[in-house]
Amino acid sequence: MLLEQEIQEQAAVLERLLGEQWAHVAQIVSAIKAFDPAYVLIAARGTSDNAARYAQYVLGGKAHLPVALSTPSLHTLYETPPNLAKGLVIGISQSGQAEDVRRVLADAREQGALTISVTNYDDSPMAQTAAHHIPLCAGEEQSIAATKTYTAQLTVMAMLGALLSGDSTLLGELRQLPGWMQTTLDFSEEIAGWAERYRYMTHFAAIGRGYNYPTAFEISLKIKELTYVIGEGYSEADFRHGPIATIMPELPVIVVAPQGQTTPAMRDLVAKLGEKRAEILVISNDEDALKPATKAMRIANLPEWLSPIVGVVPGQVLAMNLALVRGYPVDKPYGLTKVTITR
Amino acid sequence: MLLEQEIQEQAAVLERLLGEQWAHVAQIVSAIKAFDPAYVLIAARGTSDNAARYAQYVLGGKAHLPVALSTPSLHTLYETPPNLAKGLVIGISQSGQAEDVRRVLADAREQGALTISVTNYDDSPMAQTAAHHIPLCAGEEQSIAATKTYTAQLTVMAMLGALLSGDSTLLGELRQLPGWMQTTLDFSEEIAGWAERYRYMTHFAAIGRGYNYPTAFEISLKIKELTYVIGEGYSEADFRHGPIATIMPELPVIVVAPQGQTTPAMRDLVAKLGEKRAEILVISNDEDALKPATKAMRIANLPEWLSPIVGVVPGQVLAMNLALVRGYPVDKPYGLTKVTITR
Repeated sequence: MLLEQEIQEQAAVLERLLGEQWAHVAQIVSAIKAFDPAYVLIAARGTSDNAARYAQYVLGGKAHLPVALSTPSLHTLYETPPNLAKGLVIGISQSGQAEDVRRVLADAREQGALTISVTNYDDSPMAQTAAHHIPLCAGEEQSIAATKTYTAQLTVMAMLGALLSGDSTLLGELRQLPGWMQTTLDFSEEIAGWAERYRYMTHFAAIGRGYNYPTAFEISLKIKELTYVIGEGYSEADFRHGPIATIMPELPVIVVAPQGQTTPAMRDLVAKLGEKRAEILVISNDEDALKPATKAMRIANLPEWLSPIVGVVPGQVLAMNLALVRGYPVDKPYGLTKVTITR
Repeated sequence: MLLEQEIQEQAAVLERLLGEQWAHVAQIVSAIKAFDPAYVLIAARGTSDNAARYAQYVLGGKAHLPVALSTPSLHTLYETPPNLAKGLVIGISQSGQAEDVRRVLADAREQGALTISVTNYDDSPMAQTAAHHIPLCAGEEQSIAATKTYTAQLTVMAMLGALLSGDSTLLGELRQLPGWMQTTLDFSEEIAGWAERYRYMTHFAAIGRGYNYPTAFEISLKIKELTYVIGEGYSEADFRHGPIATIMPELPVIVVAPQGQTTPAMRDLVAKLGEKRAEILVISNDEDALKPATKAMRIANLPEWLSPIVGVVPGQVLAMNLALVRGYPVDKPYGLTKVTITR
């Protein structure tokens, strides 16, 4: 199984990425500081869009830059692009072949914005369009569901955030990331032992908050891609504004709740889900959050800002095992292709 | 039924809003031009967040301003807000009581940003925090599911976009909106006749693109709030990056496809859904898009940029009728409150 291998490679990929790209990203950060952008705009689709959502927190929270997610159709279908001249514009794509994302980069560069592409291929159309390119160093990703390229994308965003902040604590924490990833991979081996319980689940929800709201989205996307079960990722705050009404007894709800500033809100949510007799699966390194869970998925102890990078791993492993117990093809899910070109 | 009344009031609300607020919004637009923001940042939750998504298109496409959606937890839980000094910061909330949204406005104003609140209450905490306030003029909304305040929020965003552009065609089109709303309300009466078909649906999807991607999200939210059925709204482009794998025969898929630049992509999507034998419900004013639908929901003929304001109406009416045929309380869905305060 390619997917399993690619999931397992993630600690090594992050080690290589941090080693090979640190100085290069530091150079790009100097260019960003010289440009002094008023904001960041990120163009991405699918899994890469969840990396963009993480960037909203890590660039907003650590580098104080507001981050917008692009609306590529304004560039392509409508041909009425916004004026991006004062922005740092980043395009994220595994393949670097996303044509609509490339168009955003091209328009932005023409308007005078500072542009960066983040892809797995130096010779991709996106890499050739942007002024700077940060390679993911992930090696070829053959399985259709993106895993190692996703955590590499998050890590690039974390490098940008930490280097822009110049905060030595953050930079030191980032260096420890590959070890935390390996610990989490080791913990996640347990999941294969109990995934069968969810063989017949008909839908699900995944919920996170703050830095881990993108994690909930990405886990939801992985499960949909690999098992075709309908479910949705939510921010814990948005979830209370309506979708909480859909929680019925026995609905599997994946709660992403690593220790940090979101802990009180997430504990309260778990209690509410318990009252509604939902089936609660918790991803955390917090004993009190793990205790009420039907299924506990432990991750390494690490600072909250980096927790999304390892917090997605139990979700990847769960999605893969759900596909296996259903007898679905894990590397080539029905109806998907590795490169999706939208215009 | 309060919900039915509030849905029916929408033409009158838009008429009143355009009449009473035109000059006031024009004044605010002068202040925006004087401030010359590098970007717009919008803070909102739930239904109001879908109004913010529409603003990404109408302010991006008509006024060439890039639009970011806020991450309120950076202001509240983390207390590491981004620097919003060069931005136009807009807070949208029906009640004006969303505390996290108010905090974004307060931080932004303190940092030197230009701030606007858009709520239904002049004396709300948000209205008192922002430099400018645009009231929705919707009258009290008593039903928990927001309808008339949502279309009023979209209309305020359309007024800002059109007045910022200064384009007399757009301004003229906006004046015709209440008539198009009434036509669409009249068309939507048919829906009660066939909603029973979906009495036992277990999940659904809603898909739009460009200006109408927020419409798909909002219809999805209304159905979840009123019927507790799990489903998801998608951008047509994101949908192809993964979630299309979840489409099984007979799954009800609501396709929001008014005539415009998205027509070729949406027609292609409808063909793909047909191959997968999905149950297709189309909201459109385009004969070719309506023809292959199992259930056609017609809307008025109007320019694409305004179509989200009337395009949501068949979805509101469908969600209400789905709740009625299931025997659920329409005005006070289980588990929801009118004002949700997240921090």
